Amino acid sequence: MADRRVITLTTDFGLEGPYAASMRGAILCANPDAQIVDISHGIRPGNIQEAAFVLACAYRWFPEFTIHVAVVDPGVGSARRPVLVSTEHHYFLAPDNGILSLVLAQEEIYGMFELNEDHFFLKPTSSTFHGRDIFAPVAGWLAKGMEPSRFGTPIEGITTLPMPSPNEVRPTAWKGAILHVDRFGNLITNLTPAQIPLDEEGRPRMVKLLTGRAEVTQTRRYYTEGEGKEPFLILGGLGYYEIAVNGASAAETLGMGIGSEIGVLARP
Amino acid sequence: MADRRVITLTTDFGLEGPYAASMRGAILCANPDAQIVDISHGIRPGNIQEAAFVLACAYRWFPEFTIHVAVVDPGVGSARRPVLVSTEHHYFLAPDNGILSLVLAQEEIYGMFELNEDHFFLKPTSSTFHGRDIFAPVAGWLAKGMEPSRFGTPIEGITTLPMPSPNEVRPTAWKGAILHVDRFGNLITNLTPAQIPLDEEGRPRMVKLLTGRAEVTQTRRYYTEGEGKEPFLILGGLGYYEIAVNGASAAETLGMGIGSEIGVLARP
Amino acid sequence: MADRRVITLTTDFGLEGPYAASMRGAILCANPDAQIVDISHGIRPGNIQEAAFVLACAYRWFPEFTIHVAVVDPGVGSARRPVLVSTEHHYFLAPDNGILSLVLAQEEIYGMFELNEDHFFLKPTSSTFHGRDIFAPVAGWLAKGMEPSRFGTPIEGITTLPMPSPNEVRPTAWKGAILHVDRFGNLITNLTPAQIPLDEEGRPRMVKLLTGRAEVTQTRRYYTEGEGKEPFLILGGLGYYEIAVNGASAAETLGMGIGSEIGVLARP
Repeated sequence: MADRRVITLTTDFGLEGPYAASMRGAILCANPDAQIVDISHGIRPGNIQEAAFVLACAYRWFPEFTIHVAVVDPGVGSARRPVLVSTEHHYFLAPDNGILSLVLAQEEIYGMFELNEDHFFLKPTSSTFHGRDIFAPVAGWLAKGMEPSRFGTPIEGITTLPMPSPNEVRPTAWKGAILHVDRFGNLITNLTPAQIPLDEEGRPRMVKLLTGRAEVTQTRRYYTEGEGKEPFLILGGLGYYEIAVNGASAAETLGMGIGSEIGVLARP
Repeated sequence: MADRRVITLTTDFGLEGPYAASMRGAILCANPDAQIVDISHGIRPGNIQEAAFVLACAYRWFPEFTIHVAVVDPGVGSARRPVLVSTEHHYFLAPDNGILSLVLAQEEIYGMFELNEDHFFLKPTSSTFHGRDIFAPVAGWLAKGMEPSRFGTPIEGITTLPMPSPNEVRPTAWKGAILHVDRFGNLITNLTPAQIPLDEEGRPRMVKLLTGRAEVTQTRRYYTEGEGKEPFLILGGLGYYEIAVNGASAAETLGMGIGSEIGVLARP
Repeated sequence: MADRRVITLTTDFGLEGPYAASMRGAILCANPDAQIVDISHGIRPGNIQEAAFVLACAYRWFPEFTIHVAVVDPGVGSARRPVLVSTEHHYFLAPDNGILSLVLAQEEIYGMFELNEDHFFLKPTSSTFHGRDIFAPVAGWLAKGMEPSRFGTPIEGITTLPMPSPNEVRPTAWKGAILHVDRFGNLITNLTPAQIPLDEEGRPRMVKLLTGRAEVTQTRRYYTEGEGKEPFLILGGLGYYEIAVNGASAAETLGMGIGSEIGVLARP
């Protein structure tokens, strides 16, 4: 049973070429019973922050003790360390470049290890493709139920990236930013009900949201409540407030994207 | 064995972000032995007709009692119901918005239920992501072999979308339309051998096809029979007649796309 | 155990429409325990050489006796034969159109068969979709452990495509070409350490590389060794030398693509 543990993959390798498939093959060589599930291979090349966000939104819906492999790794082969982090509920395998920043802020960490027991690695180990040569085989062996400490040396801390966090500039007035734009053009902010509570009908208790160019005053509980092409604020499925337009792209409507700044005035 | 039942996914969530992966995770939480197979996550955002077509072309090649989850759901969270339909050979889980129109026209229906036994849902249940919070866990539990009636209340009928169907304007003269354009640029019509029989060599018994701008008079049995860039009519792998060009895109060659109308004169 | 053998898929069907999913379904109908793993469905339509390259880079990372199904098949339904090739370590199912050229150059061939035992095929067998009707069910049955000879008649040879191979124009001076451009814009050449050895630090023993427009004199062992936007030569994870730029696309920087010719002067 332990052998069939789930292994997820989050990379910038794309699905067209041989990279993602080579990782899958190398996992199955180590552990033919592993269940491999893609989170995404469509992270923009080298975009560690985007990978951190997508992983953080997806990982917690997987079963306990899932092994999450995240390889957006522009520094592959350099001094940056490959690491294994075990938490109360999950395992994470990644380069130590900040890609785990968001997930580890949400998890209770049990152990952190540098992957340096190189008898688990594919040989010869390339200096350009650790996803296949290091992370994939380690994931396969870990999914067999081996102890994390078998794969390397305990370490004290790992790299964290500064992620844009909401800032309360005065009571009930928040500065935030757009973290992600989804396939529907919804603008996912970094604000959650921790900053702006939901009202009794499930809508954000907001007076208005300012984008620099436009003002959003409408709030909704589900998308088709939106009228016409008017943008509104809504609690999205990822747990963040989103600016959305019913049946259209808010990103296009408002000319906004990742990193765009917003100000939100909450109802007291 | 029942536990390893196949669950297919047809959505407009894309593969880049966390949505499709979150559904996969939620299914595996309910049923770690489920076999998840993607039909498509590339349906154009909110395009229920395209989803209905892709699902209808793919579902019947799967094993008996496969569970097909189809979530193109612009009305998520509104009054539209989440439903489960069991047929002689398959199960379908979808919002009640017409996405099952084409498959149910081909299947003998055994039972239809509104999904309202909410102890199967993830909690808290969002009003913006029922794919993850309702359809995924129900699919996982259904794949364990639970009875469909356990998931909700029987209902009498579900929404059907008008799908463009062929029209015999006079004997052997048909009006039809383009349902789909595939990755090769083949124009998939809504005409089948039920309207225009195949001749003894496996080619459509056609005199000519009119597109408004061009006339197609050639018929073929396989693609490389086509000469030069001349378009021809051929019975495609999806069971519909297609307008194709050997080694090129018929959609580009003829300037046609989904919804384009055609007239076909069959050989009597 | 034999039943859970891995089946890989390499096609130009894309992931949006019903083609790839129909193949997966047809495999599972023949063998519900097969483990289906995608290599790529993103090969450009009809591009047999690209498929040959992607398959050759990915297949050898999979477990022994994996069944690799490669269907880029513009001649589907014509006289070109569907074939099964068994080698020392793997099985290959493909149209006989050269798609296996690169893998078979690397493998010891044990047997070659034309697939003509048509009781394994789906019925009716279309002349436009052999991926689903012939290759998928044969893959499923083969994964159950059936003997390759059960599927058809032994054949003597199969089609090979001319693939661009490096040419030593005078001692240590090589002419080569770009085989592939990956998602990062790295230009993958057809040169390997068999032509230009690595030095003791893991960098290619190169004096310079000429592209027609530009000269590359830098060599690197890992990508972030690159300085600024200067292109360099590096041994990539696929086993070939690549022209790369740190954090940018070498293809864009140098205006090169698949088929571009290069000259390389090695250090003696």
